[in-house]
Amino acid sequence: MAPVTPRFPSATHTDRIRRAAAAAEARVIDALLITPSPDYTYLLGYRAPALERLTCLVLPADGTPSLVLPRLEEPLARHELGDLVESVAIIPWDETEDPFRIVQSLLSGSLRVGLQDQMWARFALRLRAALDPAEVVEAGPAMAALRRIKTPQEVERLSAAAAGADHVMLEVTSERLSGRTEADVSGHIRRLLLDAGHETAEFAIVASGPNAASPHHTAGERPIATGDAVVLDLGGVRAGYCSDTTRTAFVGEPPAEFGALYSVLQEAQRAACDAVLPGVACSEIDAVARGIIDEAGYGEAFIHRTGHGIGMEGHEEPYIVASNPEPLQPGHAFSVEPGIYIADRWGARIEDIVVCTDAGGERLNTTPTELYVVE
Amino acid sequence: MAPVTPRFPSATHTDRIRRAAAAAEARVIDALLITPSPDYTYLLGYRAPALERLTCLVLPADGTPSLVLPRLEEPLARHELGDLVESVAIIPWDETEDPFRIVQSLLSGSLRVGLQDQMWARFALRLRAALDPAEVVEAGPAMAALRRIKTPQEVERLSAAAAGADHVMLEVTSERLSGRTEADVSGHIRRLLLDAGHETAEFAIVASGPNAASPHHTAGERPIATGDAVVLDLGGVRAGYCSDTTRTAFVGEPPAEFGALYSVLQEAQRAACDAVLPGVACSEIDAVARGIIDEAGYGEAFIHRTGHGIGMEGHEEPYIVASNPEPLQPGHAFSVEPGIYIADRWGARIEDIVVCTDAGGERLNTTPTELYVVE
Repeated sequence: MAPVTPRFPSATHTDRIRRAAAAAEARVIDALLITPSPDYTYLLGYRAPALERLTCLVLPADGTPSLVLPRLEEPLARHELGDLVESVAIIPWDETEDPFRIVQSLLSGSLRVGLQDQMWARFALRLRAALDPAEVVEAGPAMAALRRIKTPQEVERLSAAAAGADHVMLEVTSERLSGRTEADVSGHIRRLLLDAGHETAEFAIVASGPNAASPHHTAGERPIATGDAVVLDLGGVRAGYCSDTTRTAFVGEPPAEFGALYSVLQEAQRAACDAVLPGVACSEIDAVARGIIDEAGYGEAFIHRTGHGIGMEGHEEPYIVASNPEPLQPGHAFSVEPGIYIADRWGARIEDIVVCTDAGGERLNTTPTELYVVE
Repeated sequence: MAPVTPRFPSATHTDRIRRAAAAAEARVIDALLITPSPDYTYLLGYRAPALERLTCLVLPADGTPSLVLPRLEEPLARHELGDLVESVAIIPWDETEDPFRIVQSLLSGSLRVGLQDQMWARFALRLRAALDPAEVVEAGPAMAALRRIKTPQEVERLSAAAAGADHVMLEVTSERLSGRTEADVSGHIRRLLLDAGHETAEFAIVASGPNAASPHHTAGERPIATGDAVVLDLGGVRAGYCSDTTRTAFVGEPPAEFGALYSVLQEAQRAACDAVLPGVACSEIDAVARGIIDEAGYGEAFIHRTGHGIGMEGHEEPYIVASNPEPLQPGHAFSVEPGIYIADRWGARIEDIVVCTDAGGERLNTTPTELYVVE
């Protein structure tokens, strides 16, 4: 229950901060401004609340990083930072002070400043005004350059998260679904994720019958019934890293038409996983899945990209999409999740997390990709 | 389990959209750009995922609103919008399209565009570039003007959320705390919040012993022991509206010194609640609590503002802080939560949600504000 995320050693964070500064310098950015977000946690090792008071790591390409935060957050930060406080200057501000002026004073003379991707627009606009005439640009590319390649320790955490999600998937697909509402099954999945050691259950899509044709349907009051396809897409966070897996169930004997559709999907998903290898373009993985689905006549029904990177965020780089020519590298971790959606009727999706290794793709999810026939 | 948030009638949303457009016009803003956030949910009545693909309500001061979203979100949006689809144009974009160009094409000729407060900086920067030379400003003030005054239906939901949180507080303070870790108690609180009908448990601060001096301490592996003050601050979301309440417990007989500190705090919190009345400045409510704490010699130990507005967000306007001269109005809902924090030793906080009515402040939390002596 509410396990405390184990920290990586503080040397890991010192190294990440150093590499982030170097990534900024390589992009001619004088400083990165990192507000509470996965980037913040990645660099400092703890989650700060993303609230209306400015908390901001000011990370110069060259010089000592400063952490500007509301005074009431200072004890938490000192407690959580541990040894890191020796290399980060903590600058608390009082409720009636203007924190944007403090950031300005730290960055006098800067020409180009990078804003963390998920920073709130209200902060971005106020910082832009305070830092004028400096140019403000996206910090995303510099941070993604660090975070996109997972270390073995990070892959271990992704594996543990995947194992927890798999456990839940096997449990829920072994239960009777008919007669229960989507919301009931969804609530049950959230509980099971916590029981399986996840800190949070982020989503538990239960899309039944015609709802299965809506990729981001969540779960509603619809009762599940015989003859329904049911897309189950679940995930959350375990030890700071995300899980995300999808399987499709069918209540009762699936009609031949659905079986045919599902076979195409299964083949496409497997082929895309098998195509993973360093040097292969992300777009190519998408093309492999899409080609098989197109060929079988379902091209119009596959209305999203094949996958997304995963790590401390559920969706991050690299994206497995036709427009991304980036070559895969060892340490890339991402979903492979084609889907086929027939409006007003049914749908199916299969999703595994795959890590690119020198030897090819390693699937972290190990449950069967077969259609789950349930009661 | 995972209850589905009941919707307000679609007429409510039509009216909110109309009033948001008017609020924009009054501020000489040609259009508001609203990405997934509480503002988005307030206007459209459903929660869209805040992800890396742009979903954006383009709400002109004058004209038809458009909802630009990734094609895979379209079925969800149509399903959730209900009747609203008649007054909002839905514009889906494909994975390889540029959604920022679509927004640009909808806003040609605009001079001033408001960005939703929590919009991701990456979107804000790309929209600013796409809309150049239009000026981009904060949409926050226009949206806050609508959301800060709660309707009776909204107060009802805040009350129901407060009742759920109160129930959990009474339960947890009736249990033995000594010998358990903060994390264990925190996990238990999260479960209880869900059991009490909350959709999500957003936070469950359990700050014991010296940790009680850290206002935003969360919960760690520290075992709670006799002689500890324990600050319990919990809340989440029920039917779309937030709960947030704090009580302080003491394990075993509290020493006279702590009792004295607590009496001052209790008096300050009660006096601030009693001072609530339309026309009184937010800063004055803060001054009432701070005056009593100052007078008793604990001024330096009250290191945060007295409170924050609450509604669909845990923290929103109006803020009860020395720098906010805004007069209270009927329908304002906010926390009153002074605290006294003695570093390395102990701390205490008492928090209620209060609604301003014509007759004065109405406390939504009804548990006793006494110190809870526990085992």
